[in-house]
Amino acid sequence: MARLGPNRYGKAEVRVVRVARAAHPGGGDVIRDWNVSTSLSGDLDAASLAGDNSHVLPTDSQKNRVYALARELGPVAPEAFGLRLASFFVTSQEPITRARVSVEEYGWSPIGATGHSFARSGDLVRTTTVVLDAERGASVVSGVRDLVVLNTTGSEFWGYPKDEYTTLPETKDRVLATAVDARWRYRPAALGADTAHDRDTAHDPDTAHDRDTSHDWDTAFAAAKAALLAAFSGTYSYSLQQTLYAMGTRVLADVPAACEVRLALPNRHHYLVDLTPFGLGNPNEVYNAGDRPYGLIEGHVLADDAPEEGLAWT
Amino acid sequence: MARLGPNRYGKAEVRVVRVARAAHPGGGDVIRDWNVSTSLSGDLDAASLAGDNSHVLPTDSQKNRVYALARELGPVAPEAFGLRLASFFVTSQEPITRARVSVEEYGWSPIGATGHSFARSGDLVRTTTVVLDAERGASVVSGVRDLVVLNTTGSEFWGYPKDEYTTLPETKDRVLATAVDARWRYRPAALGADTAHDRDTAHDPDTAHDRDTSHDWDTAFAAAKAALLAAFSGTYSYSLQQTLYAMGTRVLADVPAACEVRLALPNRHHYLVDLTPFGLGNPNEVYNAGDRPYGLIEGHVLADDAPEEGLAWT
Amino acid sequence: MARLGPNRYGKAEVRVVRVARAAHPGGGDVIRDWNVSTSLSGDLDAASLAGDNSHVLPTDSQKNRVYALARELGPVAPEAFGLRLASFFVTSQEPITRARVSVEEYGWSPIGATGHSFARSGDLVRTTTVVLDAERGASVVSGVRDLVVLNTTGSEFWGYPKDEYTTLPETKDRVLATAVDARWRYRPAALGADTAHDRDTAHDPDTAHDRDTSHDWDTAFAAAKAALLAAFSGTYSYSLQQTLYAMGTRVLADVPAACEVRLALPNRHHYLVDLTPFGLGNPNEVYNAGDRPYGLIEGHVLADDAPEEGLAWT
Amino acid sequence: MARLGPNRYGKAEVRVVRVARAAHPGGGDVIRDWNVSTSLSGDLDAASLAGDNSHVLPTDSQKNRVYALARELGPVAPEAFGLRLASFFVTSQEPITRARVSVEEYGWSPIGATGHSFARSGDLVRTTTVVLDAERGASVVSGVRDLVVLNTTGSEFWGYPKDEYTTLPETKDRVLATAVDARWRYRPAALGADTAHDRDTAHDPDTAHDRDTSHDWDTAFAAAKAALLAAFSGTYSYSLQQTLYAMGTRVLADVPAACEVRLALPNRHHYLVDLTPFGLGNPNEVYNAGDRPYGLIEGHVLADDAPEEGLAWT
Repeated sequence: MARLGPNRYGKAEVRVVRVARAAHPGGGDVIRDWNVSTSLSGDLDAASLAGDNSHVLPTDSQKNRVYALARELGPVAPEAFGLRLASFFVTSQEPITRARVSVEEYGWSPIGATGHSFARSGDLVRTTTVVLDAERGASVVSGVRDLVVLNTTGSEFWGYPKDEYTTLPETKDRVLATAVDARWRYRPAALGADTAHDRDTAHDPDTAHDRDTSHDWDTAFAAAKAALLAAFSGTYSYSLQQTLYAMGTRVLADVPAACEVRLALPNRHHYLVDLTPFGLGNPNEVYNAGDRPYGLIEGHVLADDAPEEGLAWT
Repeated sequence: MARLGPNRYGKAEVRVVRVARAAHPGGGDVIRDWNVSTSLSGDLDAASLAGDNSHVLPTDSQKNRVYALARELGPVAPEAFGLRLASFFVTSQEPITRARVSVEEYGWSPIGATGHSFARSGDLVRTTTVVLDAERGASVVSGVRDLVVLNTTGSEFWGYPKDEYTTLPETKDRVLATAVDARWRYRPAALGADTAHDRDTAHDPDTAHDRDTSHDWDTAFAAAKAALLAAFSGTYSYSLQQTLYAMGTRVLADVPAACEVRLALPNRHHYLVDLTPFGLGNPNEVYNAGDRPYGLIEGHVLADDAPEEGLAWT
Repeated sequence: MARLGPNRYGKAEVRVVRVARAAHPGGGDVIRDWNVSTSLSGDLDAASLAGDNSHVLPTDSQKNRVYALARELGPVAPEAFGLRLASFFVTSQEPITRARVSVEEYGWSPIGATGHSFARSGDLVRTTTVVLDAERGASVVSGVRDLVVLNTTGSEFWGYPKDEYTTLPETKDRVLATAVDARWRYRPAALGADTAHDRDTAHDPDTAHDRDTSHDWDTAFAAAKAALLAAFSGTYSYSLQQTLYAMGTRVLADVPAACEVRLALPNRHHYLVDLTPFGLGNPNEVYNAGDRPYGLIEGHVLADDAPEEGLAWT
Repeated sequence: MARLGPNRYGKAEVRVVRVARAAHPGGGDVIRDWNVSTSLSGDLDAASLAGDNSHVLPTDSQKNRVYALARELGPVAPEAFGLRLASFFVTSQEPITRARVSVEEYGWSPIGATGHSFARSGDLVRTTTVVLDAERGASVVSGVRDLVVLNTTGSEFWGYPKDEYTTLPETKDRVLATAVDARWRYRPAALGADTAHDRDTAHDPDTAHDRDTSHDWDTAFAAAKAALLAAFSGTYSYSLQQTLYAMGTRVLADVPAACEVRLALPNRHHYLVDLTPFGLGNPNEVYNAGDRPYGLIEGHVLADDAPEEGLAWT
């Protein structure tokens, strides 16, 4: 006999572009460009076992709530949005005891000084995932992906074990490149007022814009990104593992609200091309940028006083 | 202060095509077309903390082992390959206490009767992930992804809660479509002799071809795929959750060696197009196949006697 | 000073799934799963030069027509659909003198015998492009893409010039693999009655299903696909160029209605892995399937009596 | 009977990363990150017709030449590289009478002030295609793709014809967004000394770095990009066609060396979300960013004195 285990459902990849007219301090428009995914769990087994949908708020309704909340909240940080959205589902739907909201944010840079023209930045995707459980509270994990970085020097790789399948030569100078996928977990204290339930004010979009949030998520994101870049750039590296650890510790140092960082760093191999058959040397100048295979280094870095992770990474 | 948490590293996406000449019962060639990823963990912290690579078997060596093992083992099932490869790393490298091997397999169908011409099937990707821990033993999770299925009828959706953001009309007849992402965990007993260490025979490829394996992985895969299709096709559905549960239970029923199934089913919405502005009815004939957003239903189904999952899903 | 040159506009990637209930001879449903793109040209310069849209039928209207026509015509071949759609735009919009319609078709295979359950085939994408010009008439180019094929033997490559940058060794036995991108142009005579203007019958979907078409496009497509496979499989190859030519001539031989074939064949290199460092030979058994770079062979094959191509390839 | 028509072959997607140490005026490294494709044509029919490869310089040799030339030329503009590479093939291989070289360039921005750390820009891909024919000379078409831009206002769409399939409401204020795909053809005079044959200097990489080129390709690219952005941002638009024309004319005005611009602009529809069911207005604030379908506007803009295009766009 079989039984149903953990299950959840929601709407994935709701594309929301929120324009806030003249909301920039300089007078121009502000854009929040998001891809929002929701996932709900709770007392839902009857849907799977008996086709009884009486507890299944349609994913279409979840999508509608995303758009309406974007209107209500204005151009807030994705973390603040996720907390409010998750809170809405858990508060308003009796059977729903847990909500997970993920947001991808795409950046835009102004074109000229019109205030209403923008070009997509394309240098990275900002991410956040909020999990809110009725009993266990809220967590926020934010991050970045597709941030591609490269050092033209300052990287070595040697001193490794050589088994019977090892043919790789050691190197004292190589290109080191990766596409940073980093996520950092915020301390519960950082969430503060954003976790307060807010249904009473939800329909007053004109005042929602300027309400304070408990944490300056945008500033924290900028600091984390800067920390990742600085550590990648500033670490003389004997392995990508070492660089990963340096990036994680730097984020923890520069973003006090963060207590844990998880990184997955593909080693985007740049193979020095052998030009000797053509009568040419290659003093670390010409590389073949390989696609596959690639090394993949994964690691967690935690603050010594990091609280329990709870449901943050689920 | 920060500390290093769990970490692992390996080579991702090693593309191996193994041709076994005249190995088919009908006389033709047999192809195994794989994308192999390895990931090792153990006593590796010095690499991250001190740039000391003395325990870090290069990912390039891991890649080499993949190719050599493909030569040695012949066109075995990916599960058998993963078990042997994981065993090699844990056995041969003192600091490595755990290995994870993932394989994607792409299918090929014969063209005509030459025995050496093939067309890529494209209907799905077969997957497997083996985790082998020196202390906790081995696990195998196999699966399928990108198996796109559609029912033109036999699906309803109604009886759900209507909150203030619900505008979706109920329906008694809709198209139901999804791209099946299913993984099933095998019982430890199914792994049998494949987990035996085999270094002594490793370099005798000519005899390796015909060694018995403990389990007929290919037959089990075919049964699981057939079960998924039969359950999708045969379930009159009141929700995709219900279909998911039927698919999971069917796999458990038809593949006794499997003890747990995890499914992630995107609801590929097919929107009935409103043709009334053009003087036309639309009796469930013309649909707009939406890309985003999509519902996403995730669930686990377990055999009542499923053993502990251990490290299987890590 | 600048001037406006050729220009066109339309709606790209309209996703249409047309279900015809019980339309299969065996009693089951028939599915046409399409991605339709339209492009119109004619007396449109005022839009570009002066922002005058009085001749610009909205792309949204074009999309609507796609859906309505799918309802009217039933599960016809994409070529027949494209001809009717193009004819509609040129006939009904005075300023529009030319229409281009492209359709991608995705195949589905029945699951079991229910008649309403299907799995996406995934082995290829069927394509067609119709160009209809008010003065110069209609053309139809159909094709296939993403048809991945592989010969495990029967391919050589040698006798090529060796310049100072040539390091490639000659081979008398290699794997040959490609993803077939082939398009064939139909003779005008094949278009026949499908080009007749049909506005009078357009709103009678119940009778439209069973109207004759001038050409059995589905049969022709099946024959062309079979010809491509047979020629790829049956050609002992000294270069992918030779295989390309064999494929083109075979299509022309087996599909009399076709007068020209254009092929683009990426050479999906399968590199024999050197296993000698590991004490193993590799008698054409283990390959690394490369992604990039790849050879790319392009060529046209024409029937000796091929009529002028006109606008077919524009 | 069938005959062979036009054909060509080459190596596609050769990934080259060229690092020039301390070549930046500020002292840091310079990176050129390219994806290079070659395509040769000439007296090649015997390969297709008879499997005779005596005129077929291997695509592997072409790839090798790409890497060697990158070493020789240093971090030159992709246009200069393409001209030199095409010239090499046509000059050195008797049967080759025409060469086509395409380069995609990915941008990198410095991280900090180390001079050797970079982050990939991601805002666009720079492109160039050189065609060099032994008889008809050289042409250069450069461009940009994936440059995503958006105006939050300053766009209307009305005054269009309404047929029986038109349901789109007119609008006096909409978001206008597109992913710019633009290519501009350079006047022959711009190619100047870059087309000179250069085999005598080819093997002296140490002097090749500082040779003059006939045209400052990088400056022209920057001017064209700036023109596209300025025209997109600065045009009050009644249709994307109008914006396209403004962008083309602006490039011609600001880049005198360019004589023709071809643009393909997908209309990335941002649908204003109807929030009235939820008791909310939506004063142009919340949009659903659609994926498919999308409008697609294509057009050419030519200088009045544009010379014949020759083989530039083939």
